[in-house]
Amino acid sequence: MAIDTYPTRKIWEPTFIFRRDPVVYGTRTDGPFGAADLEGFEKNGFLTLDRLLEPEEVERYRTELRRLSADAALTGDGRLVADEESGEIRTIFEVHRLSDVFAELASDPRVVEPVRQILGSEVYIHQSRVNYTRGFRCRDCYWHSDFETWHAEDGMPRMRSVSVSIALADNFVHNGGFMIMPGSHKTFVCCLGKRSHHRDRHALKPQEVGTPDADSLTMLADKHGIELFTGSAGAATIFDSNCMHGSNGNITPFPRSNVFIAYNSVENTCVEPFAASARRPSFIAARDFTPVPPAVGH
Amino acid sequence: MAIDTYPTRKIWEPTFIFRRDPVVYGTRTDGPFGAADLEGFEKNGFLTLDRLLEPEEVERYRTELRRLSADAALTGDGRLVADEESGEIRTIFEVHRLSDVFAELASDPRVVEPVRQILGSEVYIHQSRVNYTRGFRCRDCYWHSDFETWHAEDGMPRMRSVSVSIALADNFVHNGGFMIMPGSHKTFVCCLGKRSHHRDRHALKPQEVGTPDADSLTMLADKHGIELFTGSAGAATIFDSNCMHGSNGNITPFPRSNVFIAYNSVENTCVEPFAASARRPSFIAARDFTPVPPAVGH
Repeated sequence: MAIDTYPTRKIWEPTFIFRRDPVVYGTRTDGPFGAADLEGFEKNGFLTLDRLLEPEEVERYRTELRRLSADAALTGDGRLVADEESGEIRTIFEVHRLSDVFAELASDPRVVEPVRQILGSEVYIHQSRVNYTRGFRCRDCYWHSDFETWHAEDGMPRMRSVSVSIALADNFVHNGGFMIMPGSHKTFVCCLGKRSHHRDRHALKPQEVGTPDADSLTMLADKHGIELFTGSAGAATIFDSNCMHGSNGNITPFPRSNVFIAYNSVENTCVEPFAASARRPSFIAARDFTPVPPAVGH
Repeated sequence: MAIDTYPTRKIWEPTFIFRRDPVVYGTRTDGPFGAADLEGFEKNGFLTLDRLLEPEEVERYRTELRRLSADAALTGDGRLVADEESGEIRTIFEVHRLSDVFAELASDPRVVEPVRQILGSEVYIHQSRVNYTRGFRCRDCYWHSDFETWHAEDGMPRMRSVSVSIALADNFVHNGGFMIMPGSHKTFVCCLGKRSHHRDRHALKPQEVGTPDADSLTMLADKHGIELFTGSAGAATIFDSNCMHGSNGNITPFPRSNVFIAYNSVENTCVEPFAASARRPSFIAARDFTPVPPAVGH
């Protein structure tokens, strides 16, 4: 049994564990980021790239998303998640395996080289997905650390994973964009679990299992503040797996859409879940640790 | 029976009615606003006052809100609305009658003089309330025109009413602040009603009665854009009763709080509801049309 460096969902009350892993594993000679960028990533837990993709590339991925959503061959495929009410496709998991177009993006050197640099090793894809939400009555996505979930439910041992989120629609201040608490990646917030004693004092609702408690969030937000990402389609955010992030709901008519690719170091491959009775499906948490191949011509 | 200038909640499909009333009824000699301010209000439907209240005044109103929320004498009073889950007081209606402190604010010349100027007459208070929401899992407030509700449910005949919203907490880009579509006050969006034929095509959910449809909102937002109000506690927005407005939910730990006072012209007093079977309680829609008295010393 692997050592559980970040115990969660098992203790009586939530608490903080200060990060026991580096943030940046590589050096400035290992990739495109300079010293200032790497320092910024180490401090804040993220970096933004205002124009990772050109407008015509964005259009290509949007078209591919529409094609996949309408592909009759994918009807009933568990990787496509539809909105309960409208029936519209909201999320497509493992999109880098479902689509050559997205596969190309997932191994594009503009994406992977900075990731390899930060993680200081070869990397594989732990999860990929593309999201589309239409606004009007779009629900929020509550505060969470991806690492907390991946550690508890997927058996990711340490913090050596980063994600790239690429906007396929414009993000305004008002349409429920991605928010991060800068610097929060250095604190692991242990989450409430089903077995938590907390339950005895006042009932824990299902959506509260695996989420941070209000007192911890208040302390983090007071310390770090909240950054809301805005910008045109084609912008990207590279962020550490332990950043506390979330997004508000969106009542505006302006939809949101993004590609999300989570890379993990090949030196940090997943073991059995640390706080769940079974593994999640491999299209949500990969069990194939094959490194992303180097770009052609490199 | 009064003539229904803005029919709503009765037709088969929603539609637009272009405003049949002035926006600004007074002139620049009638109050504190200059020509540019009045032109801005006419065009956009709102004006913001960055510092209507000084910080010590904000603190006074916050203290009074806490006092009212905890006042045992008000237990069971229908004007106090508690959050279903937490039991915390969320809204206090008719707060200018419940509290001398808020009564003073509601007749403060800094508030009432611009209102009288815009409406070109004496004014009375149609509704007052103070709101407090704690964040974390605060729900959105969907797009609506206050006038549509007041016309349908309270019998307000014409568009000659403005509201003042005064922030008692800081509004950031990320904590679900107040949004307006600038210029939307010139279009009346007829809303779906229980008797709408629309119901036959796909079921109308209860929360959709009296709300604008998605196509109308998209058209308005594409034309006008969306303004999100940010600023410190003490800032105020004066806005026309027919502005399309709403707010996103708020998952941040930062609470929101505001005082809301809706003034109507004494030349536009309410009659019987135009699209409801009964009047709402008078603490939500006043039936006492006594004008706000002139300030002492004026």
